[in-house]
Amino acid sequence: MKIRKTLESVTPYVAGKTRAGAVKLSSNENPLGPSPRALNAITREMNHLHRYPDGRAELLIDALAEHFDLKRECFIAGNGSDEIFALIAGTYLEEGQEVVTADSTFSEYNFSGLLFGGHVKKVPLKEGRFDTEGLLNAVNDKTSLVFIANPNNPTGTILRCSEIRSFMERLPREVILVLDEAYGEFVTHPDFCPGRDLVMEFPNLIVTRTFSKIYGLAGLRLGYAMGHPTLVQEIFRSKQAFNVNLLAQKAGAEALKDHEFIERTLTLCREGREYLYKALDKEGFFYYPSEANFICIRVVKDSKKVFDYFLNKGMAIRPLASFGLNDWIRYTIGTEEQNREFISILSSLKSAEI
Amino acid sequence: MKIRKTLESVTPYVAGKTRAGAVKLSSNENPLGPSPRALNAITREMNHLHRYPDGRAELLIDALAEHFDLKRECFIAGNGSDEIFALIAGTYLEEGQEVVTADSTFSEYNFSGLLFGGHVKKVPLKEGRFDTEGLLNAVNDKTSLVFIANPNNPTGTILRCSEIRSFMERLPREVILVLDEAYGEFVTHPDFCPGRDLVMEFPNLIVTRTFSKIYGLAGLRLGYAMGHPTLVQEIFRSKQAFNVNLLAQKAGAEALKDHEFIERTLTLCREGREYLYKALDKEGFFYYPSEANFICIRVVKDSKKVFDYFLNKGMAIRPLASFGLNDWIRYTIGTEEQNREFISILSSLKSAEI
Repeated sequence: MKIRKTLESVTPYVAGKTRAGAVKLSSNENPLGPSPRALNAITREMNHLHRYPDGRAELLIDALAEHFDLKRECFIAGNGSDEIFALIAGTYLEEGQEVVTADSTFSEYNFSGLLFGGHVKKVPLKEGRFDTEGLLNAVNDKTSLVFIANPNNPTGTILRCSEIRSFMERLPREVILVLDEAYGEFVTHPDFCPGRDLVMEFPNLIVTRTFSKIYGLAGLRLGYAMGHPTLVQEIFRSKQAFNVNLLAQKAGAEALKDHEFIERTLTLCREGREYLYKALDKEGFFYYPSEANFICIRVVKDSKKVFDYFLNKGMAIRPLASFGLNDWIRYTIGTEEQNREFISILSSLKSAEI
Repeated sequence: MKIRKTLESVTPYVAGKTRAGAVKLSSNENPLGPSPRALNAITREMNHLHRYPDGRAELLIDALAEHFDLKRECFIAGNGSDEIFALIAGTYLEEGQEVVTADSTFSEYNFSGLLFGGHVKKVPLKEGRFDTEGLLNAVNDKTSLVFIANPNNPTGTILRCSEIRSFMERLPREVILVLDEAYGEFVTHPDFCPGRDLVMEFPNLIVTRTFSKIYGLAGLRLGYAMGHPTLVQEIFRSKQAFNVNLLAQKAGAEALKDHEFIERTLTLCREGREYLYKALDKEGFFYYPSEANFICIRVVKDSKKVFDYFLNKGMAIRPLASFGLNDWIRYTIGTEEQNREFISILSSLKSAEI
């Protein structure tokens, strides 16, 4: 049977690999587990699972509107932000139009573009950061969408406030910027400006976030987008009737309020970063200072072999060959003990013959 | 911002409406609640929700392969069968190709076709049943997909074994039949042949099923497709990395084995049907004898007004105007008490001035 032409260049997603018994620090999951308030909501709601979920996720969207102090019409929820990217492409990307993003970034932007028959242009990162000048040069009258991850996965770098603002001012108004803030909650840089503060000013900006990282709910599949109502409301057309499961809706609304858990997560991440920076400096590894819950490290050896080396020692990390960074790895900041173990293995790597 | 041309004709899905306090018998949910074995699995797994789910749902697919005695390569899981329809269209329907289905059937077939830029041809039902002759006449060299619901939603009718087989024998081999068996487990007709028995013989047949109905897990979002491996494996290309949530994967695998719950559900449905047939005959209402967990009844009044009438009396049923059946309603077979209450309201409807 003939598949769609556009899918010929699609290769299935490569997930962070691991094996039974290994400590998994390859997928930027929360080392503290899921939000306890979210788990309580699941326990309360599971007896209603024979019911269809609310197709518009109103309870969750009310909670998001309150959390961000924006109108409810600014939000749409999805089965993970992966689905949100596809919904945006499914709404605004005509077959044959172009998508612009970076080369070393999250692969689902590329996938969403291809799925709806778009051509994806990949602009190289510049010193580990999205190159706004290069992106704008790649935009032409065929461009429909631009994807920027802020912070970027896998480098952990951000675009500063002035950079995002100036980018939006120069981006043609009929081109949409999808600003993926999957790791936005982890940013500590003083010159980060959350997309939330820009969406009402720029009706061609849409910001995506997820419950997979800071809220520890990757397994539940929940992401959302916020933007100007005229931009967001059209996206409902391209979504399936019941795209977000009932437990995700209820758990998500509760997780937003789990301040104690969020604080613990942020503290662990901040302390982990500081420890790791010092240790990496001492061991002599180059890395990008990270605004996210992971660190991108140059190991100067083939990343797939380094992956095997770590796995043999009981730890799964992420080799970055599939991101085009052949001698780099990405480590998810873990618990204190996990971070120490990571540094110990990394240190032994220097003299390892691989 | 300009939306994709194909979406201009898409109107968002209309879910079974209800209101707080009303008994909801409008969405063919399981009146016995969710499968208890599924709930146990959720309780066991919820502490792992910070982990991404298995992107290929292998544990679930192993359970399905065992359940149906087919190879694991014959299966793919989705975020409800709604997603499965979109994945099939996303894999095999080129923009501008045609989709053939019925007029009065589940609306997500039409949606999936439109989402990928297809033209959808709707062949009228014949006495409440899919018209196989009419469908074949509508197929031409632009046709990519045919959707048949067996049993059909909302009429509850089936195509018999010989009809499906003869249809497949006459369908051009480059056209795919999507046979939606969302209600397949409820069929008692002796001449029903499960699509499972045909998929290895016809590599252009794909069968979809769901955990939303007999297993009582509509809120969790879980559906699947089975077909020849050459047909099914390509569909993985068009899916997002982690489309099926962790709890759905684990709960689904357990629900398949919840024989006691399945038996109770089937008994309730069978006894409910018998009671309702007698009562409807006595009250003088025309209906289609149903092979599913609902009954499609001609009320000979405007179905939306009938919906309001029922809701005022505390029960939500499904008006079928949106299916093109203006003076029909669909009632989900409920508990003994709910069925009696339904008949009582229906009886009072005859003399009501609406």
